[in-house]
Amino acid sequence: MKQINNITIIGLGLLGGSMGLALKKRLALTIFGIDNNPKHMAKALKLGLIDKEGSFNNIPQSDVVIIAVPVDKIPEVSLQVLDTITSKNTLVFDVGSTKYNLCKKIASHPKRGNFVAAHPIAGTEFSGPKAAFDSLFENKKNIICDASKTSSKILEKALTLFKIIGLHTDFMESQSHDKHIAYVSHLSHISSFMLGKTVMQIEKDEQSIFNMAGSGFESTVRLAKSSPQTWTPIFMENKTNISIALGEYIKNLQAFKMMIDNEHKNEVYKMMKETNHIKDILKS
Amino acid sequence: MKQINNITIIGLGLLGGSMGLALKKRLALTIFGIDNNPKHMAKALKLGLIDKEGSFNNIPQSDVVIIAVPVDKIPEVSLQVLDTITSKNTLVFDVGSTKYNLCKKIASHPKRGNFVAAHPIAGTEFSGPKAAFDSLFENKKNIICDASKTSSKILEKALTLFKIIGLHTDFMESQSHDKHIAYVSHLSHISSFMLGKTVMQIEKDEQSIFNMAGSGFESTVRLAKSSPQTWTPIFMENKTNISIALGEYIKNLQAFKMMIDNEHKNEVYKMMKETNHIKDILKS
Repeated sequence: MKQINNITIIGLGLLGGSMGLALKKRLALTIFGIDNNPKHMAKALKLGLIDKEGSFNNIPQSDVVIIAVPVDKIPEVSLQVLDTITSKNTLVFDVGSTKYNLCKKIASHPKRGNFVAAHPIAGTEFSGPKAAFDSLFENKKNIICDASKTSSKILEKALTLFKIIGLHTDFMESQSHDKHIAYVSHLSHISSFMLGKTVMQIEKDEQSIFNMAGSGFESTVRLAKSSPQTWTPIFMENKTNISIALGEYIKNLQAFKMMIDNEHKNEVYKMMKETNHIKDILKS
Repeated sequence: MKQINNITIIGLGLLGGSMGLALKKRLALTIFGIDNNPKHMAKALKLGLIDKEGSFNNIPQSDVVIIAVPVDKIPEVSLQVLDTITSKNTLVFDVGSTKYNLCKKIASHPKRGNFVAAHPIAGTEFSGPKAAFDSLFENKKNIICDASKTSSKILEKALTLFKIIGLHTDFMESQSHDKHIAYVSHLSHISSFMLGKTVMQIEKDEQSIFNMAGSGFESTVRLAKSSPQTWTPIFMENKTNISIALGEYIKNLQAFKMMIDNEHKNEVYKMMKETNHIKDILKS
């Protein structure tokens, strides 16, 4: 892409760092990095996630600005970046897991057209610059929210960039995005954290967890290794939707407990059989 | 192992079939298979999980009898096998996920010494003969319950056999086994099934599940693909322990929902930070 020479990435954790690696692998460009945490900055330079330390002074010269800070900081940083850019061609996008609040806060900014509210659905249970890797986005889904607010030229640029690093993009309204993601991502994290907590509470003798942990437990509890720094703000940002999703989940668990307590074997069987349908959905 | 020439496997699903493959790969012996389902029998022969179709008439000539039927059928089949064997050297073991009820039911059988109540903690979300593979047990944990009830010669034979196929064996009392396994295995399955159910209820437009399912959802919901035929009897057999574990899990989820509803950010953070400790436990 000829028109992209300089990129600034703000926030050099798993997502920001992987963006740096993924772009450097595929395009000839200079990547500047910004991070409040000097240790993350040093690590990002050492690992080659970015080329140079940058600052908000570089932003007017950047062709692309990527915002990869924790979700509670995204609206503020986004407004600051939009205030700073000077060209109609500068693409600014974020990679946060929640989108409604952000889109609302930037909605009336005069440079809203430069902004793409993106959510690449990619991640691992690890965090920080050392967790970054260049193939994180390959064959992953990406959701762009409220795309009609982005100028068509900027949107086109973003789509090209996302495609280059392997993302498949879909479009949704931010409100709908946050509701759906509460179920398919945020609830998964909570169910996993609570499973880890419940098992640790009872299994005071830790060795017995290890001994008895078949692959089933390990995969189900994997997300309980996720970073509290990343996830606390996500849960807070999306609390209304998460609370509803959690309420439904709890209701289903209570109903299942009743079936077990009352030995309603046929109902237990039926519920599982119906839920097996998830196989067809996931592989489709 | 010179003393093992003939093995009979009863139940030719994922576990029984994989036992056949794992043993045939490592030892020169003849494996007979028994299964009520003629389709499973045909498939097991076709896939080479077993060498020949067997029957209870073969059992007196078998050096080892493996019981791999659904857990609610294990006590009855075990008693029948113990009634049928004629030699003090015949090793009989089961591979079921619940052990207390079985151990109680066979406790006073005159040939109890021939029996090993085993639980190889290995499995996948798939089931039936076609799901079997020869490395299923490699580097997996195996729990033998109430080992003092087994004769030392038989126990030694079993330990050798388990080691050959890659299992690392530990010992527990059956009552304690069922309590612990309710937390680390059965609860994982229920949390996963309920997650799948909750998401499917809300996501009427199935395509959006697929679109938004990052790897997090997929791994957490993986166990919801498990077989209702296998798992309904397990949940019923271990209902007392599962009900307690589920009750604790629901309580933790309700407490977490309260934290979210009341925006107790610091508590949410603290809970996740503490639960992250699961990392150290699982890798130890």
